[in-house]
This record gives sequence, structure tokens and C-alpha cells, in this order.
Amino acid sequence: MATQGKVITCKAAVSYEPNKPLVIEDVEVAPPQAGEVRVQILFTALCHTDAYTWSGKDPEGLFPCILGHEAAGIVESVGEGVTEVKPGDHVIPCYQAECKECKFCKSGKTNLCGKIRGATGVGVMMNDKKSRFSVRGTPIYHFMGTSTFSQYTVVHDVSVAKIDPKAPLEKVCLLGCGVPTGLGAVWNTAKVEAGSNVAIFGLGTVGLAVAEGAKAAGASRIIGIDIDDRKFERGMHHLCLKCILYQLRIAAKDFGVTEFVNPKDHDKPIQQVLVDMTDGGVDYSFECIGNVSIMRAALECCHKGWGTSVIVGVAASGQEIATRPFQLVTGRVWKGTAFGGFKSRSQVPQLVDKYMNKEIKIDEYITHNLTLEEINKAFDLLHGGDCLRCVLKPLVLAVWTVEDDFK
Amino acid sequence: MATQGKVITCKAAVSYEPNKPLVIEDVEVAPPQAGEVRVQILFTALCHTDAYTWSGKDPEGLFPCILGHEAAGIVESVGEGVTEVKPGDHVIPCYQAECKECKFCKSGKTNLCGKIRGATGVGVMMNDKKSRFSVRGTPIYHFMGTSTFSQYTVVHDVSVAKIDPKAPLEKVCLLGCGVPTGLGAVWNTAKVEAGSNVAIFGLGTVGLAVAEGAKAAGASRIIGIDIDDRKFERGMHHLCLKCILYQLRIAAKDFGVTEFVNPKDHDKPIQQVLVDMTDGGVDYSFECIGNVSIMRAALECCHKGWGTSVIVGVAASGQEIATRPFQLVTGRVWKGTAFGGFKSRSQVPQLVDKYMNKEIKIDEYITHNLTLEEINKAFDLLHGGDCLRCVLKPLVLAVWTVEDDFK
Repeated sequence: MATQGKVITCKAAVSYEPNKPLVIEDVEVAPPQAGEVRVQILFTALCHTDAYTWSGKDPEGLFPCILGHEAAGIVESVGEGVTEVKPGDHVIPCYQAECKECKFCKSGKTNLCGKIRGATGVGVMMNDKKSRFSVRGTPIYHFMGTSTFSQYTVVHDVSVAKIDPKAPLEKVCLLGCGVPTGLGAVWNTAKVEAGSNVAIFGLGTVGLAVAEGAKAAGASRIIGIDIDDRKFERGMHHLCLKCILYQLRIAAKDFGVTEFVNPKDHDKPIQQVLVDMTDGGVDYSFECIGNVSIMRAALECCHKGWGTSVIVGVAASGQEIATRPFQLVTGRVWKGTAFGGFKSRSQVPQLVDKYMNKEIKIDEYITHNLTLEEINKAFDLLHGGDCLRCVLKPLVLAVWTVEDDFK
Repeated sequence: MATQGKVITCKAAVSYEPNKPLVIEDVEVAPPQAGEVRVQILFTALCHTDAYTWSGKDPEGLFPCILGHEAAGIVESVGEGVTEVKPGDHVIPCYQAECKECKFCKSGKTNLCGKIRGATGVGVMMNDKKSRFSVRGTPIYHFMGTSTFSQYTVVHDVSVAKIDPKAPLEKVCLLGCGVPTGLGAVWNTAKVEAGSNVAIFGLGTVGLAVAEGAKAAGASRIIGIDIDDRKFERGMHHLCLKCILYQLRIAAKDFGVTEFVNPKDHDKPIQQVLVDMTDGGVDYSFECIGNVSIMRAALECCHKGWGTSVIVGVAASGQEIATRPFQLVTGRVWKGTAFGGFKSRSQVPQLVDKYMNKEIKIDEYITHNLTLEEINKAFDLLHGGDCLRCVLKPLVLAVWTVEDDFK
């Protein structure tokens, strides 16, 4: 390999300060150390969690950093002791690690993994507690153990899922976060049964994936709640010359939503509206926004005796959820999910296969395509509401790419 | 029957006002109407829920009323259409009904029943929305559909469990509330597995029943948390001439508690103490006090990824539980339980059989025995902390009793 063992200088979008435009920089990416994998990122999408940390509201956010956690690429080189992937493998970086050895992985009860979070939580790599990224000698923090807004990144071997090389990376990059989070919230966390009534708060990518998962599970009523009517009936249209291929009509009902409720159309609290609509409440609800008031409404719209509410959205730091304990004593259950409960390395490849077998959607979530250079525009689109997912292609520059080598 | 179809005048303890001593009155108990059962109460215990409503803090509390919901007795007569019990049957009144026909009963997901709560919630009987109790012409409200602080009461047929006539009513009366609530919180709501770590907040009757249930489920560590050290090591002693037979050494460890933590012995928040003791938190926690701050601690002492916290205690009206949503997103589950998830008419008889087979304790929870006339003393004992359960025997007066008839 031309680059193996050497520092790669490539383009990356660096966040120097909260709320300031990202800067495309020449970043030096050090070779992978023991247990690490260097990956050429071919496609990366933008997710609200990137925007959350970028906004400065994430108390654990560290700057300068390279954001990004929903991507796909090809292994460029591996460090000592790495056996499960090799250069040329097609991979999806996974912000939820899976070491298969820790207390969490062995519990059989959770997809969380404890092995590397001591490092990823503070923006460095486990081996030497340092970053592999630098710009003109200044270290740049890692983000979520993935940092995919870069042509090359270094991840831990427990954080990379090897996938079918035939899968289109420009699509399956979405399986790094939002789509599995929604599907898994239904299938793994709530375990929705056929015939259930489901309420989904927030019809972005995650909420629509919840709808898709609920439809697949056989839910009979799938009620979408959003303050933007366009998300249900009229769908989202975006006229942009660069995105002409993705001007699909993305309406929530195409994903399985059977009824739409806009809280603005009602005087009553939304939980009461839903309880009235469903003879006592829904069997399952999902909060896909990150708003603690809506989390409460999502719990309280559940049916007495068995209704289960799953928190999927990420709330701003310091905010708290609250309810009367009577809500739980009378049988409602309050849970949450991270990455939809999927075990990343084991199950992301299975999701790729499901996509290849047309069992799950991905294309329909991609409303925009841009280059990494246009990343600040992608942040604007995400906040604009017309965008579900914007997939960015890192610019192909003069650096050698393993993609060429394996063609 | 000498009394069938007639009004029975008997003794009952009437609560005229919150926080005022109960008054032993001659109460008129009307005959059961369609779907109702009149029961001679032979033994009734006192539970914290009685004291809660008595205190005036229960916003649904209605006065004047006859409190009491943990009891056992014998059917005196039945109203039209009652087929499942007949005069002479030994029964336990159940504040959780089980009609076997409503949406709740048929769901297979809950022990709550919707059939009669429209009446029991407002202190009357379903048939005519009136009370069967009166004193000198003034109606006295029912309480929890049971009102067992009376020599005779009238309950709905869906609220009465027929039990083994050989079972000692002075013991099994406890199966009307506290003991099943604790056992069922473990067995039905949390579904504790062998080898689990369990934390129990509050070592009263319900907390000790949780310990007993956890021990039976094979939990390896059962950590009892209480601010009263006596509840663990020294047990509870009560020297009272009338109760001489019940001066048992009731220490929490006899019920299965393996470790005791007194929050007063620690500077750190109790959740942190428990997380430190258990390498990351307990698998299951149970709040058996009714304090919303402790409910939060009980959730937050659970292990990331899978820890499940069950609210068993009843909080004061208007109080709310709160936590950061991150607690749930990282895999903790917040639930609650009412009557331990047991279906009353179906499962209370099974619990009686378990007691008869020495599979569950009851005697050990009974620390005091008094007569109904001494009920105000029983309230004092309950608040004193030395008392787990005080069983009251309604005075046998000059009225005819079906007990005599069936001897």
C-alpha cells in the first residue's frame, strides 16, 4: 500500500468553534495504532446529533473537532492486532462500538459497549489517549469515535462494521445512525406487535424510520405528529439543480404513517387528543425530536395498563423529563433507545443485506446530495426542515485512494 | 339466611374528616344489589394507603367514608346474577377488580380492570351509583371498592376472590394488598432473574415482600435501603401485652435482604453509593416508600444498558418524578406496579395456596393484633415505624354472623 504506515494529508471539515462555519482544511491523519482502522470515507451524511454538538449545546462537545458519524467507506489500513477487517473491506463506522467481550456486550440485554467509551467520550483514541488528526501540528479532537467529515478517519476496530461490498455506499451510509435508530426503536426496544396503535412525535428521518419499522411490524394505526403539515400530506419537495435526482416526493404516508396530527390544529394538549383518538391511548409512542415536554406528552398519550413510550430524540443538556408517578404505577413504561438497540458490528451488516433485499428503505430518506466542501450548506438545509438526509461526498483530490486500488 | 335481603346494622370505623380519629359507629349496610356481594369481614389489616387517604392528601379521598382494603371474610349474601361466590364462601375483597371481560382484562398485558372504576373512584356502587352504607340516614362513601373497616361490607362481584376455606383468615387477609404488591413487583412487573442485583428502597411490608420475592427469584444481592437501622440488623421489637404472640424478631435479613444501606451513613447521593457498590448499578430497583426523590434515586442507581426501576410506593398528590432523559436513552427502564401485577380473582387464591404450602410468608409481617375498636391506635402504630402490619378483628357483637351459621 502506498499510504500504509504513513500520515495521510487529506481534506476534512473542521469545527473550530461552536456555531461557526466548518472550515475545509488539509488535515493530517496519522496511521492506525494497535486495534485501530484507518478508513477512507466515501460518503457521509449529516445528522441532527452533529448539529447538536456543533451548536455548542452538547456539554461534552470538544473543539476543534471533526464531526460526522453517519458514513460509509473502505478500509485503507489497519493497526496491529486488527483481524476482523482488512484493507479494501467496505465498512460503516459505528458510533456504538461492539467489542463482544465487555460486561455490556456479554449481558445479552443491551447494544451499548463499554470498551472504548473512556476514550471516545473525550475525543481521543484508546491506545495512547491522543487524537490521530492534526492541522499544522495542532491536534483536532475525534467525535463519537467516528469523525466522518473527512476523506480519511481513524476508528477503533470495535467500531467498524464490515458490509457487503456490492452495497452502494452512497446509500448505505445512512445505516450508520438515523435509519437503524428508528427501525430498532420499534423492533428491538419497544417490540411493537401486529395490530398495535403507534404514535410518532416528529417526522424527520428517525420518525419516518419508526413509521417504516411499525408498518413492517404490522401496526394497525401509525399516527404521525408534527407541527409541519407538509411532512404528511404534501411531502417534501426540494428544487435544487444539484439534487435533481433526489426530488422524490417524500411524504410521511409513504413510510407507513396512516394518520397525521398537527398539535397546532388542537386546543387540547396533544396527549389528550391522542387518548381521545384511540379509546384510551396508544400502545406504543416514540419521541423523535429531543424535546422534554414532548417526551412527557409521548408517555402520557400511552394506554393505561401497558402503553410503552420510547425516547429516541436527544434532549438539550441539563433538561429533565417529568411526569406524575401515577402514570407509571398504572402500567405505562418509559424507556429509551440508542442506535435502536442494534448491536453495531453484528447487525449493521444484516441491515445492509435487508436493504439489498429491498426489505428496508434507504433511498427515500436521501433528499439532498452535496460535496463535503458544501457542508455548511448542508447544515443550513438540515435546519430548514425540507431536508431529511443530505449525503456528502468528500472531494476526490490528488491523494491516493484505496478505492482506486480495489477497482 | 336470617339477614339475607335485609339491612344489617353493625359496627364500622367511620372516617368523618381527614386526620381526625375514626369513629366506631352503628352502620347500616344495605343488601347487595345485582352483581354485588355482602361480606362479613372477620379480619382487616391497616395499610399505608388507608393512612394516605385518611390524611387528606389523596385528592380523590371522599368523606365521610369507611376505609380499609386488606381483609378477609365470609360471604353473607349475594345479589342478583352473582354466580362465582355464594353465602359461606371464604373470600378476600380485592381493590383491583378482575371482570375477565373488559379491554384491560382481555389484553393479557395488565392486571388493571376497567369495569367498575367509574363507581369505585367516586365511592359508590356501580348498579345505582349509590353507597350501601349509611349512618342515621346519611350515606357513607365506599373506599377502593372494599371498605373493610366494618363488620359487613358490600363489594362488586368482580372484586372478590374466593379462597381455600381451610386458610386462616387472620393471616391471609394480608393477601389483599401489601404482600402481593411486593412479591408481584418482582415476579410480574420486573421479572427478576436468578443472579440479579436488587435494590429495595423502604423496608416496610411491601419492601420486605419485594425482598422475599427477589430471594425466591434467585437474586444474588438484595440491598435494602432504609433510614432506620433497626429494620435490618436489630429487627423490630414491640412490647405490647395484647400483641405478645407477635413479638417476633422481624429483621429485614430474615426476608432475604443481604446488605443494608442507610443513606444517613453516606455523604454521597444514595444512587452513587449503590452504583459504586455494584460495579455500575443494580439490575433492578424498587421504590416502596412513595417519595418522588427516592423514585429518582431508584432509577438512577440502575445499571446502564438494562437496569429496571419499578415504582411501587404511592406518592403524594401533585408530586412529580423527574430525571434526565439520558438515563432512559442509555437503557434504563422506568415502570410501576399496582397490586404487583397480580390478577386479583385469578391469582389471590393461588397466593393463598402458596401460603398454605409454606412457599410464601405471611405470619412474619403481622407485628400487631388489635380489635376494630382500637383502630386509631393501629394508625398510630403504623406511623410509629415499629409496625409492619396490624391485623384488626372487628368486634363480635350481638348481630347474627354467617360465621356461626357455617361452623
